[in-house]
Amino acid sequence: MTTIRPATVSDHDAIWHLLEPVFRAGDTYTIDPGVSRDDALAYWLAPEKTTYVCEDGGQVLGTYYLRPNAAGGGAHVCNCGYITAPQARGRGIARAMLAHSLDAARTAGYRAMQYNFVVETNQRAVQTWLRAGFDVVGRLPGAFLHPQGGYVDALVMMKDLTDG
Amino acid sequence: MTTIRPATVSDHDAIWHLLEPVFRAGDTYTIDPGVSRDDALAYWLAPEKTTYVCEDGGQVLGTYYLRPNAAGGGAHVCNCGYITAPQARGRGIARAMLAHSLDAARTAGYRAMQYNFVVETNQRAVQTWLRAGFDVVGRLPGAFLHPQGGYVDALVMMKDLTDG
Repeated sequence: MTTIRPATVSDHDAIWHLLEPVFRAGDTYTIDPGVSRDDALAYWLAPEKTTYVCEDGGQVLGTYYLRPNAAGGGAHVCNCGYITAPQARGRGIARAMLAHSLDAARTAGYRAMQYNFVVETNQRAVQTWLRAGFDVVGRLPGAFLHPQGGYVDALVMMKDLTDG
Repeated sequence: MTTIRPATVSDHDAIWHLLEPVFRAGDTYTIDPGVSRDDALAYWLAPEKTTYVCEDGGQVLGTYYLRPNAAGGGAHVCNCGYITAPQARGRGIARAMLAHSLDAARTAGYRAMQYNFVVETNQRAVQTWLRAGFDVVGRLPGAFLHPQGGYVDALVMMKDLTDG
């Protein structure tokens, strides 16, 4: 049974365990692959973010954050980042976090969700979000230096949250 | 005669004088219109930014910053923000800062410059950047709540810096 709840200080080890391989790989997030544990946790649990963990069978198998994507006139659009444990893929963790984040965003009054930088080679994510009703609203040519693929495009994806 | 040089602590008053009306108006930058002087200066002169001022006749008439737009695999793309004193418009201040920023970006080794959030109603800026060779690579529907215009689109604009 999958449960999603706000992260607490006692989740820091489990969250770092999820973040570390993803950030070290450097092929999806625009984070320095050499980032320290403290800096990674400070980023994932920054004050402007609401950070959740997804548990299944008492184990933390995923985490995501929700934040305003901008201030001032841009504060009605939110942004999220998601990480699922590789060994938990195919168990609906990512799908559950996505559904939870869309609900949380609507509840918080956001009018849209935007992903600013989706590395095009991350097709698992791209396809998941297209199926969830996100549109590709921008393509940033060569904006990401992939450790294996060289310069690849990044996508900007967005979903309207006001259409029910 | 226009001179562009790195900003120093002694420029803080002049920079705030430029930022204040723009941020208070809330129609171009995604900054809280009620932002304090300290927070505005902390944003404009953040550690990851190199901030310049443009002087003409001993007066600071413009300011801009240059920063990496992302970390890790996105660190080869830079981002800038520019502000020109309204009373100095038409004197080439904005044009001089744009040219300076493109030179500074190339010198720093950036491969592209990206503006993440250009409010579509800010046509003076949009047209200046199109003329300078920027492309519109994304359109964020309704992403900006304009104080007079309601929800308007924001553009993502980008310029390749490797084409000489």
